[in-house]
Amino acid sequence: MKLTNTLIAGAALAALPSFAFAQEAAAPGFDEIGPYIMTTFLFLVAGFLVFFMAAGFAMLEAGLVRGKNVAMQLTKNIALFSIASIMYWLVGFNLMYPGEFNGYLGPIFGTTTWLEPVGLDASEAALDYASVASDFFFQLMFVAATASIVSGALAERIKLWPFLIFVAILTGLMYPISGSWQWGGGWLSEMGFSDFAGSTIVHSVGGWAALAGAIILGPRLGKYKDGRTVPMPGSNLALATLGTFILWLGWFGFNGGSQLAAGTVGDITDIGRIFANTNMAAASGAVAALILTQIMYKKVDLTMVLNGALAGLVSITAEPLAPTLLGALLTGAVGGVIVVFAVPLLDKLKIDDVVGAIPVHLLAGIWGTLAVAFYTGNWGAQITGIVAYGVFTFVIAGVIWFILKATVGIRVSEEAEINGLDMAELGMEAYPEFNKG
Amino acid sequence: MKLTNTLIAGAALAALPSFAFAQEAAAPGFDEIGPYIMTTFLFLVAGFLVFFMAAGFAMLEAGLVRGKNVAMQLTKNIALFSIASIMYWLVGFNLMYPGEFNGYLGPIFGTTTWLEPVGLDASEAALDYASVASDFFFQLMFVAATASIVSGALAERIKLWPFLIFVAILTGLMYPISGSWQWGGGWLSEMGFSDFAGSTIVHSVGGWAALAGAIILGPRLGKYKDGRTVPMPGSNLALATLGTFILWLGWFGFNGGSQLAAGTVGDITDIGRIFANTNMAAASGAVAALILTQIMYKKVDLTMVLNGALAGLVSITAEPLAPTLLGALLTGAVGGVIVVFAVPLLDKLKIDDVVGAIPVHLLAGIWGTLAVAFYTGNWGAQITGIVAYGVFTFVIAGVIWFILKATVGIRVSEEAEINGLDMAELGMEAYPEFNKG
Amino acid sequence: MKLTNTLIAGAALAALPSFAFAQEAAAPGFDEIGPYIMTTFLFLVAGFLVFFMAAGFAMLEAGLVRGKNVAMQLTKNIALFSIASIMYWLVGFNLMYPGEFNGYLGPIFGTTTWLEPVGLDASEAALDYASVASDFFFQLMFVAATASIVSGALAERIKLWPFLIFVAILTGLMYPISGSWQWGGGWLSEMGFSDFAGSTIVHSVGGWAALAGAIILGPRLGKYKDGRTVPMPGSNLALATLGTFILWLGWFGFNGGSQLAAGTVGDITDIGRIFANTNMAAASGAVAALILTQIMYKKVDLTMVLNGALAGLVSITAEPLAPTLLGALLTGAVGGVIVVFAVPLLDKLKIDDVVGAIPVHLLAGIWGTLAVAFYTGNWGAQITGIVAYGVFTFVIAGVIWFILKATVGIRVSEEAEINGLDMAELGMEAYPEFNKG
Repeated sequence: MKLTNTLIAGAALAALPSFAFAQEAAAPGFDEIGPYIMTTFLFLVAGFLVFFMAAGFAMLEAGLVRGKNVAMQLTKNIALFSIASIMYWLVGFNLMYPGEFNGYLGPIFGTTTWLEPVGLDASEAALDYASVASDFFFQLMFVAATASIVSGALAERIKLWPFLIFVAILTGLMYPISGSWQWGGGWLSEMGFSDFAGSTIVHSVGGWAALAGAIILGPRLGKYKDGRTVPMPGSNLALATLGTFILWLGWFGFNGGSQLAAGTVGDITDIGRIFANTNMAAASGAVAALILTQIMYKKVDLTMVLNGALAGLVSITAEPLAPTLLGALLTGAVGGVIVVFAVPLLDKLKIDDVVGAIPVHLLAGIWGTLAVAFYTGNWGAQITGIVAYGVFTFVIAGVIWFILKATVGIRVSEEAEINGLDMAELGMEAYPEFNKG
Repeated sequence: MKLTNTLIAGAALAALPSFAFAQEAAAPGFDEIGPYIMTTFLFLVAGFLVFFMAAGFAMLEAGLVRGKNVAMQLTKNIALFSIASIMYWLVGFNLMYPGEFNGYLGPIFGTTTWLEPVGLDASEAALDYASVASDFFFQLMFVAATASIVSGALAERIKLWPFLIFVAILTGLMYPISGSWQWGGGWLSEMGFSDFAGSTIVHSVGGWAALAGAIILGPRLGKYKDGRTVPMPGSNLALATLGTFILWLGWFGFNGGSQLAAGTVGDITDIGRIFANTNMAAASGAVAALILTQIMYKKVDLTMVLNGALAGLVSITAEPLAPTLLGALLTGAVGGVIVVFAVPLLDKLKIDDVVGAIPVHLLAGIWGTLAVAFYTGNWGAQITGIVAYGVFTFVIAGVIWFILKATVGIRVSEEAEINGLDMAELGMEAYPEFNKG
Repeated sequence: MKLTNTLIAGAALAALPSFAFAQEAAAPGFDEIGPYIMTTFLFLVAGFLVFFMAAGFAMLEAGLVRGKNVAMQLTKNIALFSIASIMYWLVGFNLMYPGEFNGYLGPIFGTTTWLEPVGLDASEAALDYASVASDFFFQLMFVAATASIVSGALAERIKLWPFLIFVAILTGLMYPISGSWQWGGGWLSEMGFSDFAGSTIVHSVGGWAALAGAIILGPRLGKYKDGRTVPMPGSNLALATLGTFILWLGWFGFNGGSQLAAGTVGDITDIGRIFANTNMAAASGAVAALILTQIMYKKVDLTMVLNGALAGLVSITAEPLAPTLLGALLTGAVGGVIVVFAVPLLDKLKIDDVVGAIPVHLLAGIWGTLAVAFYTGNWGAQITGIVAYGVFTFVIAGVIWFILKATVGIRVSEEAEINGLDMAELGMEAYPEFNKG
């Protein structure tokens, strides 16, 4: 807060007549730099909103696991975000946008030249775009979401360090490589595949990686017994609800920031449209799950409502701009319906997804990506993209999980699982004074 | 994140000499569109802040009810927000601002034409205002606050679905109709009634609806016994405190965004003033309750301090711009004092308001609205407005509660209330591992 | 939301041909006011982010104290923020920036003239800077952080009111006076001392005040017994993690807003750089603690990881702009390492710092401030500043704590400490239904 200098300089300037401004005439005026500033500001605001989704995932997952595994789930969430931040900088960003930022980006591992120099002169800036630093910040936040999805599905039985190794590979290599197919201007982009903010590129990718892991890891002990699914209720639905609201909040940045421009009337108005549609899809996903669980089970199921809202959000993410509010409502409602039907279906298949990440992120992600074709008409490109991301992520993730399983092992011991990962792996409890046993 | 295309286009543009910008000379320059962009951005940022108040209400209320009713309170909060989002879109917005947005709004239920087309051209935009989509988004968030107030007061004994029916009517019809009297340019607006961000129009309306409900619903079982008030302490004061801080945060958007413009020096500076005043009123409301409970009870009461802060916020909402910081301090402090005296008073009247919503939102709302007359001098208009909103909302809400009571019933069974709404109505617990019994 | 009037006026304006804009030609155009608007907007957004850190500190501390002291810790946090808000307005701001805002600021206690008048005309604004109101709002939020640091270290045994008296002095006098040495343009500023966003001026100052208090107050009963340190695990690591994420979020405002300008390409790009660096330092601080606790204790320690992230944030705060991302990574990682070693060291010295505030804020703050000299080369100024803030704050704080101890007493009774401050001092519990006893 070097207030003084600025103010002193300001006072000096203010003492001059208005030609003080004219002196800068050679440099671009605000008229020319305004859009650059607005878009950069958009990236910063949207970026911190998406950052906060890390807290949302952490609370959602901490709330939906049993008390004995809460500290571990929290540890995984802060660790995965931190590792994603480092890996995406070290490798991912350059892999995802190869050759894009020639002025600033070095080769892979060329870590020192990624951001613009301090005090960038307007004449050197990409005035029709935004600060690379702000864009990097924004995109970094997306990759962490992908990893959070995996963490939720595999909770309560996966070992910490193998999980973090997987996260490093996912965020440093897998997500950036497949992301480059579309957002990096690759073959899917050329084919006309459309995924505005990442129903597939972020959410389904996380979901596919989680699905591969859930299959290879196997269900929690006692989850499926004598053909029945044993309920293992989450320990703190207040935190789960808080997490959902935080994710909902962050999604305004996720989808709104993906407009990637805020310096024209069209762009900023579009962002308004995206915000309204995003909210509507979340609301309708929640209401769909609310009504459906009442009808099907005669009782409303709060966790389904939470996941319904999230599924609505995932569904609208592939195309939050084109739909009318009615379209957004329908898109989100289908997401909510998917969740209510898919959660028990996964259990039938004995795929143990602790927080419902696969229905929410993978299945609603597929639905949202498909639904884009209602607007573009290009069903082939949408299906191709969905399949391509699915095959690539599921296969590679499966191979990595398999290698990890065969080498370091990915599952905690039976004893550790029964006693809880918190005491076994961390030696601490999240709620040492609350738990029953 | 269609980064590539933008960047490629950008690279092409950057290769052109600066007349690339000149080509757009026929369109309005940034000098003309800047204010539109800034105000739209204000609506988006303020809107997501007010959105987050939904999480604040959820945490506050979840923290102040007993453990056995927490999951239900969470369910009500996410459901009411979702239903409000849909109802305000379906009916409310058009009712509240009849004929305002002719270019974009259809008749009631004309849901597809509310938002501007994608990629709006600057020549078609209301350059002296903002994106309708962003404004809709912002105003939508206000209506949900009204419903949240009701949910807190009636907690721990109201049935889920009748409550949600009431919410649909409140957010789709009641709030928009009465809101239109002032913000829609109706008769109170013409009379000079002033309520900047809704001490009355949002908060008292919610409070009146809650009061009518609390009277018709009756107190919780065992709350008033042998002339005594039985304390029923909230189950999680950490969440209640978190909720209060989130609401405080959201209030910067609530009051600041209500400036409705950010594109001039006067407007943006006013917003700074509003932020500073809003913070001061919350702080002084909290300190007033802190000191007063120490004096009156010899012990500080945390829930009173939390409600004191909220009452300070409600109090300043009717006029957060005109007061000096000293004025804001006094306004907020009176709000805090009101809460400390009104909470036991309501109990004397055997009106059971679980979270203190009526003192905070109704009484402090009345105070704040009255206090505006210190600045406008128009006591008559302020009193007329307060009475009009009170009579309208209390009577209509009372009739609706009465009809709901006489038909579907609004209160859970005695057994359900004793066992907790969570198990009885939802079949799940918020904290299955923590609760005593 | 006085929508109507604006819209009606807007409609009228829109009906006029474009010379409606020309009419305002005499006033500064958006080209001239744009930077003022952007910087003011920056202060508002960064300010609400830093505000939210109050919730972060509250959750972090509530999570790290034992269940019987949670309500008290929450009370202290909301009370200290409120008192800081009032004291900084009443005395602090003018003390810190003496004579800076001549146009608007009166003498100390000149409370009514601090903010610009409503509807400030562009011709009267400091167009090369920002709204004073927004700047006041932003800077107010910093002082509260200082007080929160103290509250965490002294938890579980300090009396409420003596603590609040200390807060009033710290935020009204101590922090503003020492802050003026640098940010107010005082002697350290002239000497070339550099502390961008307050590693020393905010965080170390809080840490020094906490250290003096912790020494004079003494450790919690039973904390150090027979030469051993008895673990007293926090009651809610989910809340502690949430608090850490909220603080991390708020830090984008803390460091980014300290750029103090957002209206040029250079400034907004710098803010992007600051955001990216801030995130990287937090991530690397967390990863450093993650790896180090695994190596040293064979088990990851979640609270160390949380504090590692926070230490990374404190470390980068003195210079979040100049470093490359690699530099930020290294700066933050050292912060994380410091925490892992310093926490047990403090215990060796029998200085009982409940939440680890001294390692995080004081030691990492010193490190971060020192590290600035890698960029400025001015080791002398950095060391002088560190020593000056340390001596001043430690001595004055020590004297105040000593006086408070000798007069009103600062420590609760042994009985109250054993039973918990919640029941003893407040007569309420944070989790009345969860606790074991």
